[in-house]
Amino acid sequence: MTTEHYLAITGGIGGAKLALGLSRLLEGAQLALAVNTADDFEHLGLHISPDIDTLVYTLAGENNPETGWGRKDESWNFMQALAELGGETWFALGDRDLAVNVERTQRLRGGQTLSQVTAAFASKFGIAHQILPMTDDPVATRVMTTAGEMTFQDYFVRERCEPAVTGFRFAGAECASLNPEIVSRLESPQLAGAILCPSNPFVSIDPILAVPGMQDHLRECRAPVIAVSPVVGGSAIKGPTVKMMAELSVPNTATWVAQHYRSLLDGFVLDTVDEGMAADIESMGLTTVITNTVMVTLEDRIGLARACLQLTATLRDI
Amino acid sequence: MTTEHYLAITGGIGGAKLALGLSRLLEGAQLALAVNTADDFEHLGLHISPDIDTLVYTLAGENNPETGWGRKDESWNFMQALAELGGETWFALGDRDLAVNVERTQRLRGGQTLSQVTAAFASKFGIAHQILPMTDDPVATRVMTTAGEMTFQDYFVRERCEPAVTGFRFAGAECASLNPEIVSRLESPQLAGAILCPSNPFVSIDPILAVPGMQDHLRECRAPVIAVSPVVGGSAIKGPTVKMMAELSVPNTATWVAQHYRSLLDGFVLDTVDEGMAADIESMGLTTVITNTVMVTLEDRIGLARACLQLTATLRDI
Repeated sequence: MTTEHYLAITGGIGGAKLALGLSRLLEGAQLALAVNTADDFEHLGLHISPDIDTLVYTLAGENNPETGWGRKDESWNFMQALAELGGETWFALGDRDLAVNVERTQRLRGGQTLSQVTAAFASKFGIAHQILPMTDDPVATRVMTTAGEMTFQDYFVRERCEPAVTGFRFAGAECASLNPEIVSRLESPQLAGAILCPSNPFVSIDPILAVPGMQDHLRECRAPVIAVSPVVGGSAIKGPTVKMMAELSVPNTATWVAQHYRSLLDGFVLDTVDEGMAADIESMGLTTVITNTVMVTLEDRIGLARACLQLTATLRDI
Repeated sequence: MTTEHYLAITGGIGGAKLALGLSRLLEGAQLALAVNTADDFEHLGLHISPDIDTLVYTLAGENNPETGWGRKDESWNFMQALAELGGETWFALGDRDLAVNVERTQRLRGGQTLSQVTAAFASKFGIAHQILPMTDDPVATRVMTTAGEMTFQDYFVRERCEPAVTGFRFAGAECASLNPEIVSRLESPQLAGAILCPSNPFVSIDPILAVPGMQDHLRECRAPVIAVSPVVGGSAIKGPTVKMMAELSVPNTATWVAQHYRSLLDGFVLDTVDEGMAADIESMGLTTVITNTVMVTLEDRIGLARACLQLTATLRDI
């Protein structure tokens, strides 16, 4: 890499919002996104990659703002016909979203890697930035709950996050090879910052951190590593983060998130409503920025992205 | 079988029209349809069964009358999105048709037979009659042409039947097991007639006749076996039958069709415009019926079906 560049580490919806903001401030060569693939699964014979697709659709402006997943201007004739046949309909796949999943599955069966397919699709969607699956190897989040261990999608979609979680494991992670492009970017002298996006720590960021080498590369990279709290005023904007925190008996605070990532971080971004936690987080040795982290509008997304880039600049100057 | 019953032997569009007519005259237990599966193929990772689906959609009143294939009230959002991704679009799959193919593929991978899946789908579509794939084993029509040997779908869809045919083979047929329900019906003392529908002899009926035992069972069954000519006044209503006849240097006549099936037949139905061929066909030892065989309206379909049933009745009385 000859250009100063950033690596954002992200899951689906919440992280994709910040990724969109970053993509409006940085050229294609300046931003790569390391994406969770541990909620990928096979369904209806198709390889589904929820976080990759959310990121692609979001960066392309093709995401469905009502659902938070899937494509905008979607139709559901496939699902309706599948329901009439008695097929499995618990995981909704729109007609146009289905094309992405069918074509990805075809290409994977033809021998392409998930990274290759993802790059090709991102290009077709007109995305200049690099979308990097954390690994091309299979990793599957398993959710331990009081109702037993289950797949992530069974927990998240079929059971609607209702069972109380007791823990997580990322099956296959120990044997997975970190995407070499992620390694290359983390080792690059031109790396200007790495950003842990405000995604669910347990099921979006931790799986990426579970791929061997990822944590060491973050600790050893020359650039500042920062995180944005997904917990704001004791709540998560979307998804089961805070519910999981309660079930795991950990505090639902930005401070806990900072603590969770502490060994990797140089800086931390927290919301103005959590200003009172800044001192505790600073006392962990982290430089903090207090700003609005709730991303409702595109301007919010760009504003938070700018704050992140500024924090990395401040840390580079230290 | 305790009821008097009929077996119709059919491919896609032309045969399905007569099958629909028969279905209006016969109760569910009185009619089974032995269907060609040699144009089944795998596409986009899916098991596609064109003739089975044409038959199911036709009997259910769900067929697309404009295209002649696929489902009525269809949408094409999947195909459009697939085209945008650079996927294979030469074989058109509507959004609702796709559900049938995805669910069939799932059930086959889960260990069900094509016969089981077909029976389940026919039931979901409200069809009381039995739809019997000729075999549950893979058989694939290969078309020999002056442009080389190719798969049936490559010839039929991708090449639009343009290459001149020099012959056909049905790969796998020699090892395929005839659907036991077809055997059971042909051996039944209650069989009242077997009808070769007006489908393409080369690529719709011959593959069924190529499954070991099928011809012997037709010759040995106690009921009359009749055929309906797919060639009327030197033309085929739809499809490449007559083009193939020219390329194979055989006469494009009902007489040739009667000759082709001769060893299996007791009777033959030909169109009024071909009345002049009746004497030649009778001279082969076949009892003929001359009627309108061009099925434009539902009444035409029922009328031809009635003529077929009457011919079998006549032959039973001989």
